[in-house]
Amino acid sequence: MNAREMAHQARYAARQMMALDSEIKASALNNIAAALLEHEAAIVQANQLDLDRSMQEGLATPLLKRLKFDVAKIKDVVAGINSLNDLPEPVGQTLLSTELEPGLELYRVSCPIGVIGVIFESRPDALVQISTLCLKTGNAILLKGGSEAIATNRILADIIANAGIAAGMPEGWLHLLETRADVNSLLELDDDVDLLIPRGSNEFVRYIMDHTRIPVLGHADGVCHLYLAEDAEEQMAISLAVDSKTQYVAVCNAAETILIDAKAVDRLLLPLVDALKARGVEIFGDEKVCQKIGCQMVTDWHTEYLDYKVSLKIVDDLDAAVEHINRYGSGHTESIVTPDANQARRFMLMADAGNVFWNASTRFSDGFRYGFGAEVGVSTGKIHARGPVGVEGLLTYKYKLFGHGQRVADFSSGEKAYTHRSINRQSPF
Amino acid sequence: MNAREMAHQARYAARQMMALDSEIKASALNNIAAALLEHEAAIVQANQLDLDRSMQEGLATPLLKRLKFDVAKIKDVVAGINSLNDLPEPVGQTLLSTELEPGLELYRVSCPIGVIGVIFESRPDALVQISTLCLKTGNAILLKGGSEAIATNRILADIIANAGIAAGMPEGWLHLLETRADVNSLLELDDDVDLLIPRGSNEFVRYIMDHTRIPVLGHADGVCHLYLAEDAEEQMAISLAVDSKTQYVAVCNAAETILIDAKAVDRLLLPLVDALKARGVEIFGDEKVCQKIGCQMVTDWHTEYLDYKVSLKIVDDLDAAVEHINRYGSGHTESIVTPDANQARRFMLMADAGNVFWNASTRFSDGFRYGFGAEVGVSTGKIHARGPVGVEGLLTYKYKLFGHGQRVADFSSGEKAYTHRSINRQSPF
Repeated sequence: MNAREMAHQARYAARQMMALDSEIKASALNNIAAALLEHEAAIVQANQLDLDRSMQEGLATPLLKRLKFDVAKIKDVVAGINSLNDLPEPVGQTLLSTELEPGLELYRVSCPIGVIGVIFESRPDALVQISTLCLKTGNAILLKGGSEAIATNRILADIIANAGIAAGMPEGWLHLLETRADVNSLLELDDDVDLLIPRGSNEFVRYIMDHTRIPVLGHADGVCHLYLAEDAEEQMAISLAVDSKTQYVAVCNAAETILIDAKAVDRLLLPLVDALKARGVEIFGDEKVCQKIGCQMVTDWHTEYLDYKVSLKIVDDLDAAVEHINRYGSGHTESIVTPDANQARRFMLMADAGNVFWNASTRFSDGFRYGFGAEVGVSTGKIHARGPVGVEGLLTYKYKLFGHGQRVADFSSGEKAYTHRSINRQSPF
Repeated sequence: MNAREMAHQARYAARQMMALDSEIKASALNNIAAALLEHEAAIVQANQLDLDRSMQEGLATPLLKRLKFDVAKIKDVVAGINSLNDLPEPVGQTLLSTELEPGLELYRVSCPIGVIGVIFESRPDALVQISTLCLKTGNAILLKGGSEAIATNRILADIIANAGIAAGMPEGWLHLLETRADVNSLLELDDDVDLLIPRGSNEFVRYIMDHTRIPVLGHADGVCHLYLAEDAEEQMAISLAVDSKTQYVAVCNAAETILIDAKAVDRLLLPLVDALKARGVEIFGDEKVCQKIGCQMVTDWHTEYLDYKVSLKIVDDLDAAVEHINRYGSGHTESIVTPDANQARRFMLMADAGNVFWNASTRFSDGFRYGFGAEVGVSTGKIHARGPVGVEGLLTYKYKLFGHGQRVADFSSGEKAYTHRSINRQSPF
């Protein structure tokens, strides 16, 4: 089956999934969890094939670590499925209810989007997580994983698809695409695919956006800033700088640039630099910083190091900090350190990012830390979903109008009038 | 100023607008309403120039009617501004609140999107409506209207921009683009424009989608269906068919195709055809319909007539009706006529459209009829906003995290644990 045929089958499955009972989805998730445990040995064996081949091909150690899918990881994803199953039913929620006239009632009700295409990186746990999230939200899914994980992805997709079908999911609700050519066809299938979620490098996400008419929910890069305001308390400033930069450097919510208010430089710069250097962080600075501490100049403030490196800049005031952030930031996470609520308020209103923090580490911006139970990804766009995206990012809504034969003509003629009364009631279905 | 410079200035204005007080927005809306009334004579005079030129150029009568902007229309838009001003503040609404641990609180808060580009048709009232909606939601706006309304649009944009600035809106919060070249530059300005809303022909909306990386909120066409189910009551079926088709034919929520259940054909087909013909509707049918009543065959079930014409098709059952709708409909509005709640339920779940109705005319799908107070447009997409779009379509949200110096390291080490407690509280700011 080629990508076009898979998408077509997924579209058909998605139509069936629009009317799925919660019970079927719950039992499908249970079946999937059980099947993953049952086929544990076969999954680990398939993963070993991927690991062996990737090692031979010289895949870097951090990537090998991400690729590894052992018994512990299987237990983790099964725990994730169980907690997803415990979340309330996200489909069919009434979001608005209005009486247009007695006997003519309007409801805005959450519903699945339809067919979601997800292109993800090497971690096989992403496959399990994303496909069960799509099941919970009633969406059919087309998955494309990294080629280094092909054996693992195949067996996982097979187990998940079949365990779902055994519980009543429609044939074709989950398909695995395998080739780069499949991805290129996917981009053209705007009739059958409603949303694309690419999870990969910035260049890759931009490539997708430039080559498809399908809406894209992607996070580009994570150029996050920590701004130490004039009156930032020294110990908190340094503690948050160290955590934001070094707690885990290879992730999008790690800080890449620290902005220091000019009026705090004498007090904060040297202790900050000492603390960062003690953690092995290499400092890049603007001209003033380099004059003071002797360091390499920053060449591009857009840089996402994902490493033990940081850019330091001295800014005149809060507005200059916001200006820098809005020019060079990627709209991911921006944090201010200050005791002053007015400064924090202005910063949080004007820094144009999905996550704006006051006196907290940038590393908190994450669906699990936010308590969403599940995360589709982190969106740096502003349309549809922003910041860490949970189940609501995989839902849309429709308006349901329940009438008794009402015609518009009677309202246009003035014979009838709209009441437009909020009725605070659940949609009948 | 060219389009790029305008967009750049709008981006800067949008940053200021993120922190605008409700009072300034309210007084700006008041100023605008007053200024429109004050300059009534000059507006009507400018509109007369457009009307005279367009008449000389042979613009069709319905379009001339839409172009006309007289004292009565000015009163209408001013009334619209006043009721918009009465709507609750949409920005800064807390949508979710969670305690991550005591003293670390997360809020999801509504906020402006930033810079909106709107390309609209000949009606000058659209300019007033859209620009005041953007003001209310805190978005800067780039407007491009039809060239036939250029004099009217110029004076309106001028009055609105300046009345806003006099009340404290930032310079450049509203710009009017005038040339087609401006539109083409606009499509490239993905750094400074966050969302495009094209309101025009289907081809035009598709053209926009194909030529920009900026997210597009557009309605394509309105191929709406009315399905008369097996047991549809005759009088209601005919009344709703007549209203859906003929109450106003030139609009996207008028029905273009009526689907009749095969088991209802003997009972409903002839009375339906008689009623439609009595209203001057020309009937196009599938083979079976044409055999029975003698009519022209439908050549393309995607057709949006926007005229006194209708397609009639006999379908085997509800599933076949849904199948037809999901294949040929445009995702706008689909209505079923039946006394049976189970049939209605299945139809409303599976018909993949922004608006799904039970025993009501398709003509009800409209922001004003829904009681939204204002309408940006009707979205047939599923991402971000669907169906009639009110103020919420011009908003996004950001996550605000309020801490006291919390580090992720303490949670990762297991020293601290997340509480993830819903706190049902408004965000401090």
